[in-house]
Amino acid sequence: MTEPDATDIPTDDPRPGDLRSASSLVLVNTGPGKGKTTAALGLLLRAWGQGLRVAMYQFIKAKTGNWGEIKAARKMGLSIVPLGDGFTWESRDIAHDRALATEGWALCREAILSGAYDVVVLDELTYCFRFTWLDLAEVLEVLRRRPGNVHVVITGRGAPPELIELADLVTEMRVVKHPYRDGVKAQKGIEF
Amino acid sequence: MTEPDATDIPTDDPRPGDLRSASSLVLVNTGPGKGKTTAALGLLLRAWGQGLRVAMYQFIKAKTGNWGEIKAARKMGLSIVPLGDGFTWESRDIAHDRALATEGWALCREAILSGAYDVVVLDELTYCFRFTWLDLAEVLEVLRRRPGNVHVVITGRGAPPELIELADLVTEMRVVKHPYRDGVKAQKGIEF
Repeated sequence: MTEPDATDIPTDDPRPGDLRSASSLVLVNTGPGKGKTTAALGLLLRAWGQGLRVAMYQFIKAKTGNWGEIKAARKMGLSIVPLGDGFTWESRDIAHDRALATEGWALCREAILSGAYDVVVLDELTYCFRFTWLDLAEVLEVLRRRPGNVHVVITGRGAPPELIELADLVTEMRVVKHPYRDGVKAQKGIEF
Repeated sequence: MTEPDATDIPTDDPRPGDLRSASSLVLVNTGPGKGKTTAALGLLLRAWGQGLRVAMYQFIKAKTGNWGEIKAARKMGLSIVPLGDGFTWESRDIAHDRALATEGWALCREAILSGAYDVVVLDELTYCFRFTWLDLAEVLEVLRRRPGNVHVVITGRGAPPELIELADLVTEMRVVKHPYRDGVKAQKGIEF
């Protein structure tokens, strides 16, 4: 995955007025660093602030977890739906994981194709391709067929090239420095 | 800025139980890509969900702008404070910009040192160093002297090496693909 020369891309600037307005975008946050899910949450907050209808489906986080974003979503009246039932790297039952992913994807597919939401976040979806729980071609087909109002945000390490090809905006998060290296625990409210 | 080998850093995994809990962290989101401010907003949402007291100060965004995060903050009862009065790259008055930055930093300094917030986000602070509006040494000194409960999140391109040295967690956002290249306008609720 090569990075285009970014110096001519004013990502934080207002853009010239003669650009077309896309009907909707597919955004991908990938890479080994922090901030993929967190940036998706920020986008969700921003969209919610603008009055858009938003939904987030989480493929990996524990169904029983009391994560900060779940608590926030409850307070905000937002739809954040945990699909997994535990961290997959702790699972020893592939068939079980695949069934859960397939069941979860059916919800996402419906959320996207119905047009009921303006923004649908598929959090940590990419792991489903890595572990062959989901068929990439089927997911790409749903993204292509989505209604014109539906932005889709996908997060997770190792986004497949075909997904990057289809996406409009792809960001790679890289680790420059991580407290885990210094023996520091994950912080409540900061990392979860 | 070299990236450490990330393969041994389980950034999304639960970590071993024998790690110490840091009293608080300094986090930096830098790099040319999207998602620096957005990830800070996500962190803010997560922290707010966990019942932490959070505040965000924005150095660059327009004071008069009706941005998605400002609207969201209003709905959530959160403190997001715009400090600038326009995009700086449109400003032609350096003294004016420097005075605004200094005035804004005084608020941030007070917010950090008072211990009144558990998380303080200094959004796009790094631009203040690039344009020499603020003294880096003074900012680093305040970060070092902060109360033990105060996490600080700093965003912006080109974070100075001294700030990266002091920080606990640094993420670099890289552009892989950007719709601006295809002539697409920024999207309401998605990018602002």
